[in-house]
Amino acid sequence: MRAIVNIYLKDGVLDPQGKAVHHALDSLGFSGVQSVRVGKQIVIELKAADRESAMRELEEMSEALLANTVIEDYNIEIEE
Amino acid sequence: MRAIVNIYLKDGVLDPQGKAVHHALDSLGFSGVQSVRVGKQIVIELKAADRESAMRELEEMSEALLANTVIEDYNIEIEE
Repeated sequence: MRAIVNIYLKDGVLDPQGKAVHHALDSLGFSGVQSVRVGKQIVIELKAADRESAMRELEEMSEALLANTVIEDYNIEIEE
Repeated sequence: MRAIVNIYLKDGVLDPQGKAVHHALDSLGFSGVQSVRVGKQIVIELKAADRESAMRELEEMSEALLANTVIEDYNIEIEE
């Protein structure tokens, strides 16, 4: 089973990496850009009995290790 | 217009960050994990006349700055 965990900073949390990318895009002449936020995308191949148990395990992984839930949110997509 | 650029290492390119996450998940007892790849997800708000011109601009951004196309691939999703 293939799953994608997207991890992104919560609204209101400063994103210096996003600011740097925004600034660099401006310098390159991309003037239409209004904001840039940089997050992580983690692609996990895992064995699980079914979709529900995979989702439960992925939530545990996200809470325990993948995301820093003080400043980050995450969402999980499961592909077959 | 809101766009998401996903950037991930090409198949065959070593991913030490993914390996480290995989190892950490193993240590935490998540034994069903078979592989982990870590990529970036960049969320961009931009002004563009239409979807086509936005897509063109995002491709230029990806090639010029966002992705290192020697080792990384990218895909672009545009939301309204």
